[in-house]
Amino acid sequence: MRARTYLPFLLCLICAAGASAQTAPDASAASAPQHNLMPVPASVRFNSGRLAVNKTFSVAARGHMDARLQAAVERFLRRLEGRTVMELQRGLAADAGGAALVIEAVGAGRAVPSVEEDESYSLEVSDRQATLKAATTVGALRGLETFLQLLDGDREGHFVPAVSIRDKPRFPWRGLLIDVARHYEPLEVLKRNLDAMAAVKLNVLHWHLTENQGFRIESKKFPRLHGMGSDGQFYTQDEARELIAYARERGIRVVPEFDIPGHATAWLVGHPELGSAPGPYTIERKAGIFDPVLDPTREETYKFLDAFLGEMAALFPDEFLHIGGDENEGKHWDANPRIQAFKKEKGLKDNHALQTYFNQRVLTILKKHGKTMMGWDEIFQPDLPKGVVIHSWRGAAALAEAARQGYKGVLSNGFYIDLIFPTSQHYANDPLPADSTLTAEEAARVLGGEATMWSEWVTAETIDSRIWPRTAAIAERLWSPRDVRDVEDMYRRLAVISVRLEELGLTHEKNQAMMLRRLAGGRETGPLATLVSVIEPVKEYRRYQQRPQTMLSPLTGLVDAARPDSEAARRFNASVEALLSDAPRFAAHSRGVRDTLTAWRDTAPELEALIDRSPALHEARPLAADLSTLGTTGLEALSYLSSGVAPPAAWRDAKLAAIEQASKPKAALEFAVIPSLRQLVVAASEVARLKQTTPAEWKAQVKTMAAPPAKPPGK
Amino acid sequence: MRARTYLPFLLCLICAAGASAQTAPDASAASAPQHNLMPVPASVRFNSGRLAVNKTFSVAARGHMDARLQAAVERFLRRLEGRTVMELQRGLAADAGGAALVIEAVGAGRAVPSVEEDESYSLEVSDRQATLKAATTVGALRGLETFLQLLDGDREGHFVPAVSIRDKPRFPWRGLLIDVARHYEPLEVLKRNLDAMAAVKLNVLHWHLTENQGFRIESKKFPRLHGMGSDGQFYTQDEARELIAYARERGIRVVPEFDIPGHATAWLVGHPELGSAPGPYTIERKAGIFDPVLDPTREETYKFLDAFLGEMAALFPDEFLHIGGDENEGKHWDANPRIQAFKKEKGLKDNHALQTYFNQRVLTILKKHGKTMMGWDEIFQPDLPKGVVIHSWRGAAALAEAARQGYKGVLSNGFYIDLIFPTSQHYANDPLPADSTLTAEEAARVLGGEATMWSEWVTAETIDSRIWPRTAAIAERLWSPRDVRDVEDMYRRLAVISVRLEELGLTHEKNQAMMLRRLAGGRETGPLATLVSVIEPVKEYRRYQQRPQTMLSPLTGLVDAARPDSEAARRFNASVEALLSDAPRFAAHSRGVRDTLTAWRDTAPELEALIDRSPALHEARPLAADLSTLGTTGLEALSYLSSGVAPPAAWRDAKLAAIEQASKPKAALEFAVIPSLRQLVVAASEVARLKQTTPAEWKAQVKTMAAPPAKPPGK
Repeated sequence: MRARTYLPFLLCLICAAGASAQTAPDASAASAPQHNLMPVPASVRFNSGRLAVNKTFSVAARGHMDARLQAAVERFLRRLEGRTVMELQRGLAADAGGAALVIEAVGAGRAVPSVEEDESYSLEVSDRQATLKAATTVGALRGLETFLQLLDGDREGHFVPAVSIRDKPRFPWRGLLIDVARHYEPLEVLKRNLDAMAAVKLNVLHWHLTENQGFRIESKKFPRLHGMGSDGQFYTQDEARELIAYARERGIRVVPEFDIPGHATAWLVGHPELGSAPGPYTIERKAGIFDPVLDPTREETYKFLDAFLGEMAALFPDEFLHIGGDENEGKHWDANPRIQAFKKEKGLKDNHALQTYFNQRVLTILKKHGKTMMGWDEIFQPDLPKGVVIHSWRGAAALAEAARQGYKGVLSNGFYIDLIFPTSQHYANDPLPADSTLTAEEAARVLGGEATMWSEWVTAETIDSRIWPRTAAIAERLWSPRDVRDVEDMYRRLAVISVRLEELGLTHEKNQAMMLRRLAGGRETGPLATLVSVIEPVKEYRRYQQRPQTMLSPLTGLVDAARPDSEAARRFNASVEALLSDAPRFAAHSRGVRDTLTAWRDTAPELEALIDRSPALHEARPLAADLSTLGTTGLEALSYLSSGVAPPAAWRDAKLAAIEQASKPKAALEFAVIPSLRQLVVAASEVARLKQTTPAEWKAQVKTMAAPPAKPPGK
Repeated sequence: MRARTYLPFLLCLICAAGASAQTAPDASAASAPQHNLMPVPASVRFNSGRLAVNKTFSVAARGHMDARLQAAVERFLRRLEGRTVMELQRGLAADAGGAALVIEAVGAGRAVPSVEEDESYSLEVSDRQATLKAATTVGALRGLETFLQLLDGDREGHFVPAVSIRDKPRFPWRGLLIDVARHYEPLEVLKRNLDAMAAVKLNVLHWHLTENQGFRIESKKFPRLHGMGSDGQFYTQDEARELIAYARERGIRVVPEFDIPGHATAWLVGHPELGSAPGPYTIERKAGIFDPVLDPTREETYKFLDAFLGEMAALFPDEFLHIGGDENEGKHWDANPRIQAFKKEKGLKDNHALQTYFNQRVLTILKKHGKTMMGWDEIFQPDLPKGVVIHSWRGAAALAEAARQGYKGVLSNGFYIDLIFPTSQHYANDPLPADSTLTAEEAARVLGGEATMWSEWVTAETIDSRIWPRTAAIAERLWSPRDVRDVEDMYRRLAVISVRLEELGLTHEKNQAMMLRRLAGGRETGPLATLVSVIEPVKEYRRYQQRPQTMLSPLTGLVDAARPDSEAARRFNASVEALLSDAPRFAAHSRGVRDTLTAWRDTAPELEALIDRSPALHEARPLAADLSTLGTTGLEALSYLSSGVAPPAAWRDAKLAAIEQASKPKAALEFAVIPSLRQLVVAASEVARLKQTTPAEWKAQVKTMAAPPAKPPGK
């Protein structure tokens, strides 16, 4: 589901930005502000003391034990070994009395991972032993991840602090959608992402398997589906089973999506007879919304879907099956006289009604095959049976309305990680916001949320960097209590978890340097790294607008190497705010800000020389000039601020115009430090006025200085 | 084959170091000293002009075309896209006249990759078109790699310079041995290494599949072999076929090794009846040479080997099958009265004779299954039939002796990349040295060489960093003319090829930063990176001696993150040599040397603070102190040199003692800058004498200054 109309989403983000400004105290973590747990547990209380983690460390079990838990303990020990560089035991210790960690699980839980699974656990760590209790194996898995996050070290060695944790998720549905249709992802990419999901307690992989741009799952009944719709890039049924088993081992459900009746071009390549237009069809290579759509009027369509969905229902054990149902504009229906006649005959007043008819037919098929139907917002039409689950790309309000009417739902609006928004915005997004007016019964229908990794612009090389670490903060929103919302603390913990996720093979941190080396043709990448540290890909759907590519284009450009939510920019912006708040001295953080600005100014010549020799970087040339402009401008502002001498009259407008120019995206990239530069210039231009302003008044003004000028300066 | 006695190897390296000091002019590349080709072609002549590589770039074929070549063109285009960030054609262009690159292959070549394959090609690039001619598909593959290495860029865009290349390999056998027995490597690791091998024109993967520590190939006839000898980490026969096909696609042979009669503990876990001692046996976890050995006296052993090797001969299509045959000390033979009686009965005077008897029996089996036998030096015994190929870990002299006696051979002595020696030493190693006295006929029996990646201390995370980029220089030694031996130029090109290899998914460059982040527990790794840039793992077999681990230990320590052949150290050493040669001013490179030394001195406190918080780094604490000592010492020496003031009398010995202390390995790591520091101190202490020395005299002395003192100073 591509939210083409992003206005509701934008509005939501504006609210979110407001919300994130209130850094409410995190009551539940108050006793240990410096822990690195993510998601924050429901209840955590640190005690005095610590449990040493040394070469004798072992794990034992009391009570229930099964192959899944045993394998999880094995993986847990190997990860502990990797971090501590100590060789530890293999397998479970026989003696629970002497073990450092004792697991007490009550039972295996559900045979097939389920939305009803009890994932709760408790973890008690004293200086003698840690005890992990859980009702189910999955609960124990969640607790093992918490234990790994508690690992710390000092001069004495590795340890876990003494702590009492009682934990359970706020929402039962905490998912990550991976679109493997626009770009195929090798199985190993999905596996490492499942490992990362487990590390942050996500429990649903929403596997978006079919699209206009690709049909990625083997059908033994209709081999032309994947055979002609995938360029040979599809998952065999054996591979699907392997992935489902891999997910189950980690307490993760796999919900498959077969998007119909729209988003279905790739189905029609091998089966044009299912389409509403005569065809022939070819795999779509562009991004966007397209017209091909299944023909809902022919009985053969339902026979086909019955056979195909029956095959998939047998392959995927999860209770839910997602049928998409989004973004069908019905143009091919309008153009087909037979379909128009059918509508008239059946009294279907418009294409929405026709799609509802289609959905009802599909629902009957899914019921027959024992599945609960799930679909995007568009399926929420009058007469929709209550059992169907709504997946909302429209927003929490739409979800609440559905819940009020008795429908269960899952939120993805606000969790579109492909749109390159900063973590803080996703973090502020809540399926059940504090101002929700739902009754408890209605609220229980809001099952949770899913981050969506739509894959128009990601490959195996870059996908991790679009998912992680931001999705860890979404995982926290879906697991932790609603009042866990301290943005600063989230970012601090996120930096730690990001590095820890690397032990699972994720490439989100390490691939950027590699991509910069390739862009630089093996030359020194220092100047390029300086640039890329403060730029981000443009947001929402602007990348495609500004720098069109197809599904076959190489995704190896600077925009692909750049990452969302620049940490360097965030630090710089915080330093500038601290500096400006320190009026009239402007001493706080001034050295760091000056060094950074100087680096920008001085890097530009080297960067330009590098760009000259690297044609793949030619598109970045204007950014190099902008970087220099921003550095120079900032340094001038600093100089006025520190000297207290007011700049010439025309200076402010000239500089704001230069910043405005630098703020315009180039090569689908934009600087993430623009507001800070504006603040510096405005502050410098008002340095004289400062003498009549109290520090408190000044501080209140600083935040408003970043607004872009109402009209371009000088006009 | 583990060269436990490394004296011959050491001697060879000393010769090599001498040889590498003569930087003979690279005649064949004289016309273009700045190209990035590795291996350097047999003949290359740059012309004026260039072929633009832009969006219209396409490849066409005249003459022979097959699926293998077509797939290679497809990979070629995708790699070109990745570097240029331009979307290029899919598949072959129909119009050869308009194509930028035209391939003219004569035929497919051998169906099964062979040591007899014609790999020659020619590449003519003009400003209108490039023409790649080859007798075989494999020759065309080699030429495509050369074309990719020629890619360059400037302000005008990407291009390939006009050039005439006639190329063919010096040796037909250019291999990389990967030991997957000590540590198992996932198939994807082997695949990316096959891609890298193809990129530098290597053509043999020697797959070391069985060992004391693991039996890694599925046997359908004897499933207890892999079932009980591999901890579940083995390759299925389907996977082996997949890998062989993958290698064939890249013109690479796969030669399997089943090491017998020694190195066979893992065989005996499931089949103790094959052993010379009663058993039971368990998978070996330590490194070293072990006693378990097949019983060569029982007919059942040969029946078993006939069945097993017959199964493997059918699985592996290559003409050669490697039986190891190394490092059997025969202790279990000596201890077994029945085996002693057998020797007496057969008139076999010692264990060598018994092993020769065994080899003859195995040879008969292999002949029956259509294979040519290959084995390590030890199989070279009187009466060895001439068809057998000797694989030499002893050295070029042993290989020459075998060639004189009519045996074909392959050299691995001097190419033991697991021993962490610098690239320059491997580069100087030649299967047919310039002083060889072999006749042309004898010399033709020297088939080539193999780099050996023994895997005691590598995992999937680190193996690439032990193989690459050094193996690219070995590939050049085996492909390029003997007189291509300019070490400086090799290092310059190696840095470029190293980055280009990353496009194939190799992790040798990018994993170090990740490992440092893990060691630092997510904290700032800058100080650690400064340290690790100038240290190297200890050489030869000292790692195991100094820091014992097992095959089950985590290989995530600082020694694992450190890489062979430190580039930063090499640059520093070159700068110090330039500085000292610039007597009596000592101005050349002095700023860079001073900055580096200052960084070492100033990093130490931050580094120590980091170590305090990261127990996995505690073992590195003495290295942090040494780094500071080296920095301070170097700065003092610089100061005396620049001022011309002589240091106090005791200064020299005190400083040399401190350097001596710092030169001792810690945590199995050692500084790669010690000789330069010694030179600085000795030079500073003689700064007064300089006034009586001519610059030429001085220059001659500088090189000798790095020798460690004959006895510890001050004693």
